[in-house]
Amino acid sequence: MMELKNKKILVVGLGLIGGSYAAALSAAGYEVGGIDCLQESVDYALSEGFIAKGQSKVTADYVGDFDVIVFALYPHVLFDWVECYGGFIKQGALVTDVTGVKGEVVYRMQKLLGERAEFVGAHPMAGREVYGIKNASATLFCGANYIVTPTEKNTEGGIVLCEALGRALGARRVSRLSPEEHDEMIGFLSQLTHCIAVSLMTCKESHQLVDYTGDSFRDLTRIAKINENMWSELFLMNKAELLSQMDLFLEHFTALKDALEKEDAETMKQMMRLSTERRSYFDKK
Amino acid sequence: MMELKNKKILVVGLGLIGGSYAAALSAAGYEVGGIDCLQESVDYALSEGFIAKGQSKVTADYVGDFDVIVFALYPHVLFDWVECYGGFIKQGALVTDVTGVKGEVVYRMQKLLGERAEFVGAHPMAGREVYGIKNASATLFCGANYIVTPTEKNTEGGIVLCEALGRALGARRVSRLSPEEHDEMIGFLSQLTHCIAVSLMTCKESHQLVDYTGDSFRDLTRIAKINENMWSELFLMNKAELLSQMDLFLEHFTALKDALEKEDAETMKQMMRLSTERRSYFDKK
Repeated sequence: MMELKNKKILVVGLGLIGGSYAAALSAAGYEVGGIDCLQESVDYALSEGFIAKGQSKVTADYVGDFDVIVFALYPHVLFDWVECYGGFIKQGALVTDVTGVKGEVVYRMQKLLGERAEFVGAHPMAGREVYGIKNASATLFCGANYIVTPTEKNTEGGIVLCEALGRALGARRVSRLSPEEHDEMIGFLSQLTHCIAVSLMTCKESHQLVDYTGDSFRDLTRIAKINENMWSELFLMNKAELLSQMDLFLEHFTALKDALEKEDAETMKQMMRLSTERRSYFDKK
Repeated sequence: MMELKNKKILVVGLGLIGGSYAAALSAAGYEVGGIDCLQESVDYALSEGFIAKGQSKVTADYVGDFDVIVFALYPHVLFDWVECYGGFIKQGALVTDVTGVKGEVVYRMQKLLGERAEFVGAHPMAGREVYGIKNASATLFCGANYIVTPTEKNTEGGIVLCEALGRALGARRVSRLSPEEHDEMIGFLSQLTHCIAVSLMTCKESHQLVDYTGDSFRDLTRIAKINENMWSELFLMNKAELLSQMDLFLEHFTALKDALEKEDAETMKQMMRLSTERRSYFDKK
């Protein structure tokens, strides 16, 4: 099971992410199939050569033909799908996903699939502010991080296969984290930053500010353009972790505010020196 | 007094901003002089052709020769300078500044200068994360906003002259705001965003996060690299306004957090829809 070569890969859900998986894997020479409930997405993927075959109906003979299945669905749709059609999956297949929260997904998927197939969670850290297969691209994951989140239920062979999938997509860095480490990291780096951007952007009716806006406000709010259905679902799935990251931020923001209120310039400067030092770690090399 | 042409311009303080004023105005054909307490900054400005003459000593005959004076100093140094040497300024000269907070500067400068010279506050909205005249550039203000903040003490002639200075620097957009409107706008768009970036960056020892960081965290913290002396001074000068902007942000951030806590997906989605709509105003055309 450790070689990805010659494996047939099925992508379930042909949106931006699923479509880009299909495009990248086909471009890398794999035999890729697709399923999407919208026939027009299937047709588009076929016409662009993202998939060799595809259908909008989920049938046992079609699904059972694949060795590797990638779910690129909204989480609640994912669980429904596996409850309905999990029995169609080939015995011993490798199943993975693309969801941005892992704890709530990985354990549940492993339970749902039971002994039939091995589930290894994965998170390709790439995305765009646009959606749908028409924005999919074979190069979406080039240079991205691809995180695999195994549990003690996984075999080394399954994990290695899932990592090979990340490399086949063109990811720059493939790494392993536990589902919990992943969710803490993503809670801070991605979900908290989106919460900040959304909150900042809702503060004011801001038409009249456009003319005066420099790069700092633009940079802090770029990610305030957000798919509300997907992100609200991801926030709720990572609720406890995200709340604790929000509290952490509030603590530091309030400390700065208190220092300003008390005109305690030294505390303000200390925070600025620390932020300057830490931000320098992130300068791109 | 309405024509900038043929006016002799003195830049006091040859750092990044003052140096860039001098470079841009010399490149545009103006006769520019400079003063800086560091002789090496004066020498550098002379050797680069940013100024035609310069000195590190403040003398009456030198200062009194200029029609327009641009102060590019830290605020507390600015007031000291004018208290000591204000009497050297030519009767009827136009005096302006570059400070990022206006209310605290403009009224005090107008009072300090009295009948001798007309003070019109200005804020060239450009900057870099590096400092000093060696980073100065004639093109720093190209495409930037340049805001003039007149009061009822100003003459139309003085205001127009100050606006002409902005255009001579290459600013894309020259506009007028009252000092209070300016400070509210800058409190929200610039100071609040810096407070957020600094607070976020101080949350965690973050060396181990670098490998997983995508664009959103990088974008939100770019401005966390900050000159602590200048920014703490600017925050304190705009204390009341900035505190009220911080409270506004806290209100919205807390609303989002409460919605998450209560699993109120509809409120979360409403905020996301609003932020998406408002952010679209800021897409660069």
